[in-house]
Amino acid sequence: MNKNRIEAFSDGVLAIIITIMIIEIRAPHESSFEALEPLIPVFLSYILSFTYVGIYWNNHHHMFQSIKSVNGAVLWLNMHLLFWLSLIPFVTSWIGEQHFSAVPMSIYGFVLMMSAIAYFTLQNKLIHLQGKESILKNAIKDDKKGKISLLFYFLAIPLAFISPWISGMFYIAVAVLWIVPDKRIENLIE
Amino acid sequence: MNKNRIEAFSDGVLAIIITIMIIEIRAPHESSFEALEPLIPVFLSYILSFTYVGIYWNNHHHMFQSIKSVNGAVLWLNMHLLFWLSLIPFVTSWIGEQHFSAVPMSIYGFVLMMSAIAYFTLQNKLIHLQGKESILKNAIKDDKKGKISLLFYFLAIPLAFISPWISGMFYIAVAVLWIVPDKRIENLIE
Amino acid sequence: MNKNRIEAFSDGVLAIIITIMIIEIRAPHESSFEALEPLIPVFLSYILSFTYVGIYWNNHHHMFQSIKSVNGAVLWLNMHLLFWLSLIPFVTSWIGEQHFSAVPMSIYGFVLMMSAIAYFTLQNKLIHLQGKESILKNAIKDDKKGKISLLFYFLAIPLAFISPWISGMFYIAVAVLWIVPDKRIENLIE
Amino acid sequence: MNKNRIEAFSDGVLAIIITIMIIEIRAPHESSFEALEPLIPVFLSYILSFTYVGIYWNNHHHMFQSIKSVNGAVLWLNMHLLFWLSLIPFVTSWIGEQHFSAVPMSIYGFVLMMSAIAYFTLQNKLIHLQGKESILKNAIKDDKKGKISLLFYFLAIPLAFISPWISGMFYIAVAVLWIVPDKRIENLIE
Repeated sequence: MNKNRIEAFSDGVLAIIITIMIIEIRAPHESSFEALEPLIPVFLSYILSFTYVGIYWNNHHHMFQSIKSVNGAVLWLNMHLLFWLSLIPFVTSWIGEQHFSAVPMSIYGFVLMMSAIAYFTLQNKLIHLQGKESILKNAIKDDKKGKISLLFYFLAIPLAFISPWISGMFYIAVAVLWIVPDKRIENLIE
Repeated sequence: MNKNRIEAFSDGVLAIIITIMIIEIRAPHESSFEALEPLIPVFLSYILSFTYVGIYWNNHHHMFQSIKSVNGAVLWLNMHLLFWLSLIPFVTSWIGEQHFSAVPMSIYGFVLMMSAIAYFTLQNKLIHLQGKESILKNAIKDDKKGKISLLFYFLAIPLAFISPWISGMFYIAVAVLWIVPDKRIENLIE
Repeated sequence: MNKNRIEAFSDGVLAIIITIMIIEIRAPHESSFEALEPLIPVFLSYILSFTYVGIYWNNHHHMFQSIKSVNGAVLWLNMHLLFWLSLIPFVTSWIGEQHFSAVPMSIYGFVLMMSAIAYFTLQNKLIHLQGKESILKNAIKDDKKGKISLLFYFLAIPLAFISPWISGMFYIAVAVLWIVPDKRIENLIE
Repeated sequence: MNKNRIEAFSDGVLAIIITIMIIEIRAPHESSFEALEPLIPVFLSYILSFTYVGIYWNNHHHMFQSIKSVNGAVLWLNMHLLFWLSLIPFVTSWIGEQHFSAVPMSIYGFVLMMSAIAYFTLQNKLIHLQGKESILKNAIKDDKKGKISLLFYFLAIPLAFISPWISGMFYIAVAVLWIVPDKRIENLIE
């Protein structure tokens, strides 16, 4: 089964997820710089989530580049990943409007963690499909980045109740970790 | 006539339908877990409809994979299918906000039934175009799943007035029936 | 210059235009059939505009299928067409909410007329690019449908002030005229 | 690394950015021509921003046509460009609703300037990747248009506080400068 259409559909969903977050930021009803001030947390949450969806798109792109065909199970595991990512606009506007308070920050981490788990499940399925000589397996090796991310989300969820800023630091740390372009798969394909 | 662009347009529309439902779920104006409670029915309806649109995308993908070209009638029958599917976000937010009460649940079933009828009309046209040796015809055989789905919708629409939960069970049953990856066409192509 | 990306971008814009109209139809805050009644004009306007955008997508698809490459002027004429089509969701929700009253119905016709003019300008440019042996020119011949449509819009705009229903009839008539699959280009390509 | 998917994703994001601006323009609650009057500044800002996104799409299209492959850094620089462009719907509805007053007009220029800087950074990276015989480098030559645009934005940002109309003139001037189809790359490819 050809992989083009699953890529196109995922591109479409990710493009919408990354863009609809901006509709939820309403233009202020005044014309001053001060009118932008209450929007600062909303914009910060937008930047964080834009970066996360960007990371997912990049990794999804790299991952599918290494494979040649998909099957029915892959279609559903990909849909499962898109489901969790589709919740990002909701939690983004929640943390922004609630100024990064404890409960929303914890739920934000939960959505990121579930997205990461969905991603790993999909990745494992694709590795399994490629068999022993899996390019993907060789590329991610022991997937340190992935494991650290999961650990950080897992810590950030309860720690939000001690201080939401700790969770925030964890989310930023994971983003920084991944924003470095993933040369692993690129190198191997070359 | 080439099938690529009808696939691309359908992917776009389905990607938007599946994603805009989340915009209608507004972040709560408080920071507590309790603030999420009133959103539970809204989220349940989102999960159900996300799954349905996912099923339609998957089946659409499989169906078009088995064909090589399309004609003007196929373009319009596909547009007709997209029309009914485009009503899903509307009925989804209705059943969610009205806590799955009778009338919205019945109308939800009506939209699903019309979508299913539109899908079968399109499928029949494609089978007809392929002629006797139709891969699609061989793949769906007597299309038991399709017939059961239609029957379930047909029952669920009036039964919502006895108990909306019965209709809900029918909608979940149909989703479960289809979420099993459709190996029929895959097998035959192999 | 390759035509793939202009097709993909147009597909994206048209897919969004056709789908966002449904977000503007808010689910009623009650659970009765009566609660749907005030939405009837809104749904009728949705059906009409969905059909129109569907027609434009179909014709756009046929038109670009007959050509091989594009240039900078084509990119801009296509953007111009998309601009006018992007106003359709606005006028659609206006005529629906205002129960097809005179001014909105007249403006609706104006947007359709400008879209049609933008389409013809693009079409002429493409014919000009193909030169004497233009497949597109042979396909549309004297473009009767196009001319009738323009005439109908031109009449419908002022007639809305006598009776908006006359304009409505004209808009439906044009849609019916085009919904018949455009066999002209198909035939010639075969 | 193949460039198709970065084009498809960018097309999706740009198609959404260009189209969601229209959702923010709500249909008036009356049926008169006068009811459209207060929307005039909103429509003017829509036209300006539609044109800008159109220009970006056109230039993006030309730029990627001249290259053959991308790498991880290009993916991120492109994401960075899309981030700034995604802020256009926000500033567009702000300048429209605030009737082009000083602060919003200045911020509008800031978003355009950052988008332009993001575009040049991406362009430089692509030129660097192509090496000495860069088609892109030969096409843009000394990139006069780009430099003038940056200068105009840079002037328009503070000048908005003297008169927002001066800034408006600068934004229109830049749009006019680019709306002339970019024959530079086209010529060279031919």
